[in-house]
Amino acid sequence: MRILILGGDGYLGWPTSMHFANKGHKVLTIDNLSKKKIADEYGIEPLNRVKSFNKRIKLWNSNQKNKIENLVFDLLNYKTICETLKNFKPDTIIHYAEQPSAPYSMADREKAVYTQNNNVIGNLNLLFAIKKHCPHAHLIKLGTLGEYGTPNIDIEEGWLNIEHNGRKDRVLFPKKPGSFYHLSKVHDSANIEFACRIWGLKCTDLNQGLVYGLMTKEIELDSEGLATSFHYDSIFGTIINRFITQIACGKPMTVYGTGNQKRGFLNIIDTLKCVNLAAENPAKVGEFRVFNQFTEFCSLNEMAMKIKSFADNKKLVARIKNIKNPRIEDEEHYYNPKNTSLLSLGLKPVKFDEKQIESIFNTIKGNTDRVNIDTLDPNIKWKI
Amino acid sequence: MRILILGGDGYLGWPTSMHFANKGHKVLTIDNLSKKKIADEYGIEPLNRVKSFNKRIKLWNSNQKNKIENLVFDLLNYKTICETLKNFKPDTIIHYAEQPSAPYSMADREKAVYTQNNNVIGNLNLLFAIKKHCPHAHLIKLGTLGEYGTPNIDIEEGWLNIEHNGRKDRVLFPKKPGSFYHLSKVHDSANIEFACRIWGLKCTDLNQGLVYGLMTKEIELDSEGLATSFHYDSIFGTIINRFITQIACGKPMTVYGTGNQKRGFLNIIDTLKCVNLAAENPAKVGEFRVFNQFTEFCSLNEMAMKIKSFADNKKLVARIKNIKNPRIEDEEHYYNPKNTSLLSLGLKPVKFDEKQIESIFNTIKGNTDRVNIDTLDPNIKWKI
Repeated sequence: MRILILGGDGYLGWPTSMHFANKGHKVLTIDNLSKKKIADEYGIEPLNRVKSFNKRIKLWNSNQKNKIENLVFDLLNYKTICETLKNFKPDTIIHYAEQPSAPYSMADREKAVYTQNNNVIGNLNLLFAIKKHCPHAHLIKLGTLGEYGTPNIDIEEGWLNIEHNGRKDRVLFPKKPGSFYHLSKVHDSANIEFACRIWGLKCTDLNQGLVYGLMTKEIELDSEGLATSFHYDSIFGTIINRFITQIACGKPMTVYGTGNQKRGFLNIIDTLKCVNLAAENPAKVGEFRVFNQFTEFCSLNEMAMKIKSFADNKKLVARIKNIKNPRIEDEEHYYNPKNTSLLSLGLKPVKFDEKQIESIFNTIKGNTDRVNIDTLDPNIKWKI
Repeated sequence: MRILILGGDGYLGWPTSMHFANKGHKVLTIDNLSKKKIADEYGIEPLNRVKSFNKRIKLWNSNQKNKIENLVFDLLNYKTICETLKNFKPDTIIHYAEQPSAPYSMADREKAVYTQNNNVIGNLNLLFAIKKHCPHAHLIKLGTLGEYGTPNIDIEEGWLNIEHNGRKDRVLFPKKPGSFYHLSKVHDSANIEFACRIWGLKCTDLNQGLVYGLMTKEIELDSEGLATSFHYDSIFGTIINRFITQIACGKPMTVYGTGNQKRGFLNIIDTLKCVNLAAENPAKVGEFRVFNQFTEFCSLNEMAMKIKSFADNKKLVARIKNIKNPRIEDEEHYYNPKNTSLLSLGLKPVKFDEKQIESIFNTIKGNTDRVNIDTLDPNIKWKI
């Protein structure tokens, strides 16, 4: 397949680029490097020393048989997207190229507007460019499980069979997103569903849980040179990565609020497996398909307890500290998201267990001197 | 009340401005004059000779006791919105200030992006400005009944009590919008619901049907000088206004497709009554309230038949011509939108009858020399 990856410099975009190249696909990967700019703005850095996008590509290409092409540009630049699609002729487009931080989108008006403009208009440009230059390409769009919020009913996969006043319909699952970032993803999904319905585009929207981990088969080929950026900070860090960083530094795991909030999560290796399954089993012409992409779910307290249990077994000091929740979200709620689609396509999930925690812990342990303690706890509040 | 009207130069914004001024409220009305720019781009003009925004304001103020203040600026200009809210201190903000044409939003990528950027970011700016400067103001936002599409279930007012797998919740009504314009309104509603939920803003989202007519109590004070722009063209014209223009010019009423599509509609006088009811009965702190704002619904064929019947009684030649539908929409569908909220607040609707048709017909008849026949039929197609 000819696979175009958008957001190829990111935590997941980079491992995805190597994954598909390693499988022998023709890969072109694109990024606008905006995440680095936001990181600089907040004075945050990944835990690991990560080479620049261009240097990683060069390193990969000098050692690997299956090369990766890359370009640096922005989805707000419609002309360049068009040229790229026209020249590269992708079969599959994997779209990670969005401002990925909920807290960032809540910091102030400028950042909320930046997030919605960048994500919604970038995605809209992409839809028009696909229609024009490669209407048969399969768009795999990364969304988030957070788009659904925490409804009091089971969370189905994107669509809902509904019965109301004795009549039936199949409707988009009603969402209750929790930040301007999450809202941008909801808007994207609505625009994409329309493009599939009207123009016959085909799309898989992956509503993904919180990803943890930093090792993939391709990163193992050169775990320093090919590393993906591992964030533990309150802007880009996902919760499990942050918790393990906290115990590696002898700091308490800070749980927002009561910690009874439940969230779905998955290993970075499973992200690659899921995206791969979606790519190998594309949506049909005109189909807007949604997969909920997570492998386990539990409360934040349960996540912290699992990590504490690992630490206790290692005779490490591990504490859990509940701090005032900077977000506005339900802390006591029903939660039952479905994830049968990817399992029925053959996904065999990695379990979040002590072995997984240990692997992440060991990498962090070698880098604790690089941890900036000040960036661990949240400084952006939902209610200003 | 101190009432701020956004989009005060428009078909509905202008009569709304006069309506509230005439009732003795303090009115500031704002527009960016962008509709005129789009009209110029397509070479379209309203049927009637409409004075410029500033001239109409001047005329009103020179003859009426209750003055209207006005300003020309864009909601994309955040600084000016903030200054305006800070200085004017509105109790009620009525927000019509959006690119209002579905066909325009479907013409090409630039126009889709313009529509979503203008509407979504403008509205987002407004939400942040309200939070900062007048969090207790009641936002009345104009949405459209078209946001819902034509689901196979009853259309409730914005929210839906749902039962799924034996559990219950109250969720935002799942929408299926039919153009990038309609999508922009759906995105707006999602952003506003979040702002109400998180910041405690109060909002009434009016999901309005197709408006017809051109006469209001205030316009009658000087039906030439204070006229609101009446569009019959395929870009801005609403269907009943276009049909009556067609018969006044001896042209067939062009119905898109089979004409079995059903739509809700209301008289411009009822728009004013509804907005007035919303303003006098504001939403509560933190409430995102949705009213479906229409008074009748029927199929396009039934609308055309009513007008034909009027014409037949007048011994006029009136034909109906079904043309290829430029839109992609269901033409055979269930339709049962609810509108009990405004009725229970006391709305007494005007009925679409021969008297109403005659009043519009007579105004058009005096201006048929100004009709540009070329702009009656659609030239923008949903599927390019």
